[in-house]
Amino acid sequence: MLKILQMMIASTSSSSLSFANRLNLQRRGFSIISLSSSTTFRNTPSILSTSKTHSVKSFRMSSTRSDSNSIAPSTSSGNFRKVNFCQWCGGPTKHEIPDGDEKMRAICTQCGKVAYQNPKMVVGCLIEHEEKILLCKRNIQPSYGLWTLPAGFMEMGESAAEGAIRETQEEAGADVEVLSPFAQLDIPLIGQTYMIFLAKLKKPHFSPGPESIECRLFALDEIPFDSLAFSSMLVTLKLYIEDMRAGKPKFHYGTISKRPGTSPSDIHASTLDYHLQS
Amino acid sequence: MLKILQMMIASTSSSSLSFANRLNLQRRGFSIISLSSSTTFRNTPSILSTSKTHSVKSFRMSSTRSDSNSIAPSTSSGNFRKVNFCQWCGGPTKHEIPDGDEKMRAICTQCGKVAYQNPKMVVGCLIEHEEKILLCKRNIQPSYGLWTLPAGFMEMGESAAEGAIRETQEEAGADVEVLSPFAQLDIPLIGQTYMIFLAKLKKPHFSPGPESIECRLFALDEIPFDSLAFSSMLVTLKLYIEDMRAGKPKFHYGTISKRPGTSPSDIHASTLDYHLQS
Repeated sequence: MLKILQMMIASTSSSSLSFANRLNLQRRGFSIISLSSSTTFRNTPSILSTSKTHSVKSFRMSSTRSDSNSIAPSTSSGNFRKVNFCQWCGGPTKHEIPDGDEKMRAICTQCGKVAYQNPKMVVGCLIEHEEKILLCKRNIQPSYGLWTLPAGFMEMGESAAEGAIRETQEEAGADVEVLSPFAQLDIPLIGQTYMIFLAKLKKPHFSPGPESIECRLFALDEIPFDSLAFSSMLVTLKLYIEDMRAGKPKFHYGTISKRPGTSPSDIHASTLDYHLQS
Repeated sequence: MLKILQMMIASTSSSSLSFANRLNLQRRGFSIISLSSSTTFRNTPSILSTSKTHSVKSFRMSSTRSDSNSIAPSTSSGNFRKVNFCQWCGGPTKHEIPDGDEKMRAICTQCGKVAYQNPKMVVGCLIEHEEKILLCKRNIQPSYGLWTLPAGFMEMGESAAEGAIRETQEEAGADVEVLSPFAQLDIPLIGQTYMIFLAKLKKPHFSPGPESIECRLFALDEIPFDSLAFSSMLVTLKLYIEDMRAGKPKFHYGTISKRPGTSPSDIHASTLDYHLQS
């Protein structure tokens, strides 16, 4: 098992984030970012459980609304449904653990093929332009009317970077160049993994596509943290702001979970576990 | 479109790799690593097409055999098959571009659900132990008898790091701690994305699982480059050796393609495109 560090820092408004208590420990560390709905400042001590810990950063911020935590970007569904029939021969399935396997699978009773279901990748861009970043207000459910980075499910035949560029074109009408990988955020609860790239506009033009009501550049202290669509975007933007304050972006890996006892629809009740940086 | 740099450097044997011509340009760069089957040294000039280029590193090495390029780790299939029936109601599908979509999808003619097919993630560990790395000799097809890092398809309900730890336990009988993300390598040709983590043994014990003939620690100059199972492992190990020689590991993102005119089964004919580092 991965070891876990936990620290929670609160801030009282979305535009005055606290990024205190940066612990400069060794490289290759773990941390949790906890984002609760409390409006009171609290800073709990970290629990160091590994000698190879780099930095522990987390925060806690105000929340004024609830919304869906399930991402449903433009073209594909990430939902995990029970497989009742074989996709290839149409035969009914049985649900058993195949020989040599350890997990329950849907196995076709006619042709014997196994229908594996695996997590899906959501790819998107964090676009930097004149010290602002580009967000899109969603014109579709879930999270209609809330703000997101342009992102969507990665398609067969494309790379993650190509998918992120395509989604940005579709949702923000923007032609971008990918600069570097910024974050991989797994959400095991819903079988999704986010791959977010830093990118820049090739031309200073953007316009909302059919899935967006509006696209707008936000300065870092203007980001609408109380109106973000998804926990993945909240975590990504927090990490980005923190990196910018520290001087330069890193690559972040982590797992987004929900804190026990919180509503699954409250994106501010998410925690970032197993946070690793490169 | 992403801009591309290309350079090819040859070496005459697998154990005497050339990592010459490191161009120290700006951060956030692109490069291609080309791995051909030629045994002659050649160093072609790079084509710089962006002002934000960091480093161009590539190599070319001897190849004495051909093998499968398709990865089929332990438990799931990454193959892309045509969907003929609905998984949920069993109805026959039609293949059309749905309203508001741009890609051909399998749509159920009975319940109307769309069967999206998306790339799968393969997760694995590059395990460092006393300046050696752990490889497994495959006991299954494809690439039976060839060497690989422990890796397999990410499962629903787990994170990439958890999946990499699980696969390492299954294939190498090793209990590992993940240290940092090392590489994301997309292979659009087969709809797979590799996520490789650096890891260390919690205890100095390992033993082959059912899918491995043998597990062994290799010093960096002993890695069996002529007997590796997959192009993803070849690229990962090359990047790792290069990073170690430069002093420390980075995070690498890139796309693995096949050079036109080469056999799809020759892993040494792969190119690493859109190489970005963090």
